[in-house]
Amino acid sequence: MVSPIDPTSAAFLLAENRSQPMHVGGLQLFEKPEGAGRNYVREMYEEMRDGKDIAPLFLKHPHRSLGTAGRLVWENDTQFDIEHHLRHSALPRPGRVRELLELCGRLHGTRLAWERPLWEAHVIEGLRDGRVAMYTKTHHALVDGISAMRLIQSVLSTDPDRRGMPAPWGFLPSSAKAAKPADKAEHDLAQVPIHALRTAFGITAEAAGLPAALLRTLNKGLRNETSALSLYAPRTMFNHSITGSRRFAAQDWPIERLRAIGKASGTTLNDVVLAMCSGAVRAYLLELAALPETSLVAMVPVGLNAKQSQVASAEGGNAVGAVMCKLGTDLADPGDRLAAIHLSMVDGKRALSSMTPMQILAMSALGQAPAILPPLLRMQGIVRPPYNLIISNVPGPRTTHYWNGAKLVGQYPLSIPINGMALNITCTSYDGKMGFGLTGCRRTVPHLQRLLTHLDDEVNALEKAAGV
Amino acid sequence: MVSPIDPTSAAFLLAENRSQPMHVGGLQLFEKPEGAGRNYVREMYEEMRDGKDIAPLFLKHPHRSLGTAGRLVWENDTQFDIEHHLRHSALPRPGRVRELLELCGRLHGTRLAWERPLWEAHVIEGLRDGRVAMYTKTHHALVDGISAMRLIQSVLSTDPDRRGMPAPWGFLPSSAKAAKPADKAEHDLAQVPIHALRTAFGITAEAAGLPAALLRTLNKGLRNETSALSLYAPRTMFNHSITGSRRFAAQDWPIERLRAIGKASGTTLNDVVLAMCSGAVRAYLLELAALPETSLVAMVPVGLNAKQSQVASAEGGNAVGAVMCKLGTDLADPGDRLAAIHLSMVDGKRALSSMTPMQILAMSALGQAPAILPPLLRMQGIVRPPYNLIISNVPGPRTTHYWNGAKLVGQYPLSIPINGMALNITCTSYDGKMGFGLTGCRRTVPHLQRLLTHLDDEVNALEKAAGV
Repeated sequence: MVSPIDPTSAAFLLAENRSQPMHVGGLQLFEKPEGAGRNYVREMYEEMRDGKDIAPLFLKHPHRSLGTAGRLVWENDTQFDIEHHLRHSALPRPGRVRELLELCGRLHGTRLAWERPLWEAHVIEGLRDGRVAMYTKTHHALVDGISAMRLIQSVLSTDPDRRGMPAPWGFLPSSAKAAKPADKAEHDLAQVPIHALRTAFGITAEAAGLPAALLRTLNKGLRNETSALSLYAPRTMFNHSITGSRRFAAQDWPIERLRAIGKASGTTLNDVVLAMCSGAVRAYLLELAALPETSLVAMVPVGLNAKQSQVASAEGGNAVGAVMCKLGTDLADPGDRLAAIHLSMVDGKRALSSMTPMQILAMSALGQAPAILPPLLRMQGIVRPPYNLIISNVPGPRTTHYWNGAKLVGQYPLSIPINGMALNITCTSYDGKMGFGLTGCRRTVPHLQRLLTHLDDEVNALEKAAGV
Repeated sequence: MVSPIDPTSAAFLLAENRSQPMHVGGLQLFEKPEGAGRNYVREMYEEMRDGKDIAPLFLKHPHRSLGTAGRLVWENDTQFDIEHHLRHSALPRPGRVRELLELCGRLHGTRLAWERPLWEAHVIEGLRDGRVAMYTKTHHALVDGISAMRLIQSVLSTDPDRRGMPAPWGFLPSSAKAAKPADKAEHDLAQVPIHALRTAFGITAEAAGLPAALLRTLNKGLRNETSALSLYAPRTMFNHSITGSRRFAAQDWPIERLRAIGKASGTTLNDVVLAMCSGAVRAYLLELAALPETSLVAMVPVGLNAKQSQVASAEGGNAVGAVMCKLGTDLADPGDRLAAIHLSMVDGKRALSSMTPMQILAMSALGQAPAILPPLLRMQGIVRPPYNLIISNVPGPRTTHYWNGAKLVGQYPLSIPINGMALNITCTSYDGKMGFGLTGCRRTVPHLQRLLTHLDDEVNALEKAAGV
């Protein structure tokens, strides 16, 4: 059972090395249902383990040999062992979130072996507050980070009493269809996962390939200062070579607080998220005496409507572009930073809408696969980085969701740091909270967890500045 | 910093594949010292993590490239990250030995990636009896199984009050020398580890290489029924292809009980260990309706004195030969099985002493590296296996040992199942107990843990048969 690997997936596999594992991750926190027994987590693990359906791509591993003429193909794992992929783990004492983040960082820093299907899921007990954590790790050759999170969401339900729900890797088109009627209100949510499993369901969208001509266009755009695509980004400590070691930090804040800041200052929720990151990165770099004089630039993926992109149809309306946003880290005042970010985003979106369809398609590919381009562009060889870090903000479900009665109370994405881009911030909203996931190289970005404190300080500072 | 890989180590690296990871493991159980605080295990972990000395071989990884002309070499890991190799883990509830063995089986079933130094150590908390476990995993290219256990023993002390002791991978010749005076009585113990770290200390013993001529001799001997080396071994369920999934079972029994059986029956301690294995394997195969009519044959490594082997000097007196032992699994009576094993071992040792030095050297290589030969011999292609399983019994320290005040209360080896040899039993004595470690392919040897019950039943049956 051999099937072809599409060019994008192959590129992710080939771009991978020990310093740059190419997998995305997700951390979910669940509250046990009422009346859960002492062995609840084991039972949850066993239920997932014993599920019979597994999506085809989760049963295949990449293979290349003389028999395939050196081409990379997907091959069925004839020794597939669910207990290798799904693991029941526990946290050491005292079982704080800190121990959980340490474990996630460690798990995220280890490459998936090509000899087995490229995913892992860990059901984790031992949080002293009684919550259950789930860390999942999926190779970017299978899904991108956002799709991976949506894949997990797609098996959740708004009904706390529903049972018999499959694990994310058990999400098959048939079970999806069966699940739909009950969850009609969440239709927007469940749309994406099918696209996520690119090859599994035979969907190798043209847009997933990255033709050489487009790459050249994009490359030129990023290197050319006169282009609307590019801004002057200073060289920072984030823009160095990285190792394979990872740290992960995660926390969430009430969206209500962030919206109030936006409302009072005439900015968007996304502007406020970027301002939080800006202030936190500024404080972090100041502490390390490493703040550049000019502002850092973030690459911010943004949604494009079909009219803007003209190519969105291939992606079912989910086309994504990218804006280069000046973060205003050179400004001391939180309010000034927020205002600067707002202007930069407005400018950037305007530039994007004046691009040719070809340029937008190139940007769309960039947004869809932010981690793959820099290796292709040999970012390390560029003296001046085109941007300093990637900050993504992806809307998630607004209502409370459950998995077989366990209430999802938080979710945080783990992304892919790469050479020259050692820190990645990805946010996702869920049930009234904005969850931040910060993934960094442990060597290049020391004391990553300090950014959480700085983020929290920045929310307070922005509230004060906006007068809320 | 590139250094050559000796031929034996290279052979272990090249024989490895997804079904046959070539690492050995050890499980140690410690009791916390009196007055240990709630964070004792974390402190233990941190002490190990922060140790400054690391033996050179534990900092290198195998490397092969155009630059090395395709040869395998050891190369320094320029991104060495102790937190990747030393991990602080916890058991899920209820924290029984069962959960510990599950974790060990899972850890033992995952290959070490060549891109990093080939070892891992896990400090494990969460056993409900309060003990602390340590699982270590080292590639056979670095040490063999026995040496790996002795390496760990070498950093232990008989003095419960001693502190500042290094971790096993911090065992350097200099620290060894510094440690010696206090532990003179344990000199016999500490002899081996230096040999264990073959390349690290520049000791590439001639005996470690496996010249092709010797291999041919040995190959012929094992295939030739007329040779004293070989017996008729029936084909069993253990002698099939394996997968990479592992199960591990471990338990210990008081040596006093086993000695009493030997004394009453005129047999040796080793005979009794073999009889326990024989009875247990018989009961296990009977349950599965898979017991062959003729007796199973075990390959049993035995110590050789210098005079016998004539080549022992290169190995510092630790030369090892191998006896093919008829286990008497065709006999229903436990006493009959013990008697048959005793005779078979006496015969086997006699055959061994009548061998030519050349043959003994070949056997010595076999004993030293039991896992490497079958792949070289292409055992899978042999219709009739030369033996059915490997049972090793290696004497360990007789007195209580400590690591920085933590009392070692049990240790159990994890070995290497290979294609055609799906079950391995390795025993080691320590402080009045005989610890059994059973490592098997989870698919080929289902319900491996049942063998523990059968082993226990067999001790009782042998006591009854011997009248003790």
